[in-house]
This record gives sequence, structure tokens and C-alpha cells, in this order.
Amino acid sequence: MIYSDIPQETIRRLPLYLRRIDQLIKSDQEHVSSQDLARDLRMNPAQIRKDLAYFGDFGTRGVGYDAERLAREIRSILNLDHTWNMALVGVGNIGSALLTYPGFERRGFKVRVAFDKREELIGTEVGGVTVEDEARLEQSVTESGSKLGIVAVPSHSAQEVAQRLVKANVKGILNFAPTILNVSDGVRVTYVDITTELCQMVYYFQE
Amino acid sequence: MIYSDIPQETIRRLPLYLRRIDQLIKSDQEHVSSQDLARDLRMNPAQIRKDLAYFGDFGTRGVGYDAERLAREIRSILNLDHTWNMALVGVGNIGSALLTYPGFERRGFKVRVAFDKREELIGTEVGGVTVEDEARLEQSVTESGSKLGIVAVPSHSAQEVAQRLVKANVKGILNFAPTILNVSDGVRVTYVDITTELCQMVYYFQE
Repeated sequence: MIYSDIPQETIRRLPLYLRRIDQLIKSDQEHVSSQDLARDLRMNPAQIRKDLAYFGDFGTRGVGYDAERLAREIRSILNLDHTWNMALVGVGNIGSALLTYPGFERRGFKVRVAFDKREELIGTEVGGVTVEDEARLEQSVTESGSKLGIVAVPSHSAQEVAQRLVKANVKGILNFAPTILNVSDGVRVTYVDITTELCQMVYYFQE
Repeated sequence: MIYSDIPQETIRRLPLYLRRIDQLIKSDQEHVSSQDLARDLRMNPAQIRKDLAYFGDFGTRGVGYDAERLAREIRSILNLDHTWNMALVGVGNIGSALLTYPGFERRGFKVRVAFDKREELIGTEVGGVTVEDEARLEQSVTESGSKLGIVAVPSHSAQEVAQRLVKANVKGILNFAPTILNVSDGVRVTYVDITTELCQMVYYFQE
């Protein structure tokens, strides 16, 4: 489905709504109101109603939304109604933690192939995936049909790895290396930078 | 230093500028212009000049900013001119990766104490820190003077752990558990949720 003019901030909040709705469904709640979500997520209910209104009117006043239906709609909106194959490069501490991270599969993300250049890691199995030689990256990523790549190598190799992933038809990169990646325009890069998050947090401690 | 009315978005960008300026200093560049930063970070130079202008006028037209001085100013603005002690709870895959994460110390963040409730982990050393029994959390965190806490336990324990950290005088929490934390008003929580980042990314793939 394609929806136009949806603000980026709304897209940012939808996965949070979805996570909470899934939790409510698990505990057998059939309906969910914007008030429920607002309270649990510490947000403004009017904001939540406004976000959900972009996708049509599927709530009933006084009853709220049908939880299963709302979850299905959000998954469809977010493009999460099928599995996304991923390729991971760099099986160090962070890479290994990601290979065993249970949060991915819950949303349909699946690391299919993993690479490292360190001989002692090649051929080992981490989280059910056999680590391959980084030399095989392009071929193996293409064969796996992965459209998402995770860069978990040291900063000095991150740019090269990103370019090789893009060559293998990866369209989105989650970058854990603390460095800026230059990739072609059609490719999205998301930076996961824990130190930057900490820096922002401590700024507010002086007030 | 206290600066008023600085937009949150500016605060969010300052650590990115700082990281890039530090890289330039390392490669012996003495001056840095908003154009340099804009090109490297793929941003708008006018935006960067506007962000830096909140803190006074320390650039020279045509020459740019004195790199060392600008880095020092940003560190001071962000409250990064001293070490921040941290407490980490949950030494699983993610917790272990964080204990050995080199990015923290570069910015003055230092995990001083780490906890787990699993007997086989208590007493082991990870990244130079000896894992303590979670039962000792309040006492040990208070003694360590940690103002920052990292929650890397499973979702169902995250709320309890967060409350115990707050009791031990922690003012900011970096939460890796995929769940919302309810803490008292003076405490900041930052969520690191990789799956949510992926969800946002794939939304844009349908366009």
C-alpha cells in the first residue's frame, strides 16, 4: 500500500504503537483505544488519533480500535507483512549480539548471511547462521536476496563494506560503525550510535 | 554552562559535529568550516552555522572555526568535559558487547559496575568490569557514583531494574529492552530499539 504525505514523525511512531498493540493482544485485549496507547507510551492521545487517521477511520468512538485489525493495518502500512532478509557484516561483539537478538524475528527480520574477514570466525555458527568469508560478500548477499544490510565492522572498513553491500543490491543499511557512510541516493542509511544518544542525554543533566 | 532555548534538534546534531571535528583534528586539520562539516555529514551548511550560532560567534568568515576550540566548546556545551560513570544491568549478549564497546571511553563514558542475576556470570570479568550479583545493585551503584544506567535485561525485568537504578540516584537510563519504562519525572530514558529503526527503514522501500 502506498500512502502519500505521511509525516516522517508519524512513521517513526507507528512501530511503537504496533509493539504496544501486540503486547495487548498477547494479554487477550480485543480492543485498544488511543487513551490506552497514550497512557502506556506516555504520549498525547490526540497525537495518536491524528497519526492513525492518516490510514483511514478504523476506530469506533467509546470502543476504540479492533486490536488485531489495527495491528494488521499498521504492519501493512509499514511493509512488515512479509519477511525481510538481512546480511550482517562483522561478527565481533556487536555483530554476535545481533545474530542472537530475538527482537528481529518477531517483526519478520531475518539475518540470512553473515560475514567476517577473520579466519578463526569463518565457518563458525552464531545464532544459527554460518559465518562466511567476507570475500564472498557480493555473491552470497545477492543469492540470499537480502535487501537490508547491517554494518558492524570497525569504522575504517565501514565505507568499503557499505559500498559492497549496495553493489549486491542492498537498499537499506543499519550502520553500527561510528562513521558517516556515503552511498548512492536510492539507499537509506540508519545510524545506531549509542554514544551520541548518551551525549544528548547528559546535556540535559546540567539544567 | 547553561544555554537557554536551544532546540532539541540542535542538541541532537552537536555530537555528530563533534565526532567529525575530532576526526579532522586527528588528521591534523586546524580549521573546520561549516562547508567541511556539511559535506562530510551530508547536511546543509546554513543549518550547521545556525546550530553553532546558539553558542556565540566563534567562526571566522573564509577561514572557518578553530577546530580544537570548536571541539572544546561543543564538549563543554554537551557537558562532556568530565567522566560519566555508568552502571550496566544484564550481562547477556548485548550487555557484554556494551562492556567491551570502545566508543564509550572516547567520550568520557565509563561503565563502573555491572550486574546480573545469573550465578554463572557473577564474579566473571567482562571488559575489565567484574560482574556483581544484582542483589547488590542499589548499594553498589550508589557507591560508584553512577548517574547513568544501562538496562540490558529481558523486557519483563526492565521496569523493576529501572526503578532500582533510580533509587540508587541514576538520572538517565539507556534502555535496550523493547518495552516502555515508567520512571519519575526527573529521570530521562532513551530507547535503543533496533527493530523499530528497521521498521521505519522498510516503510520507505515501498515508494
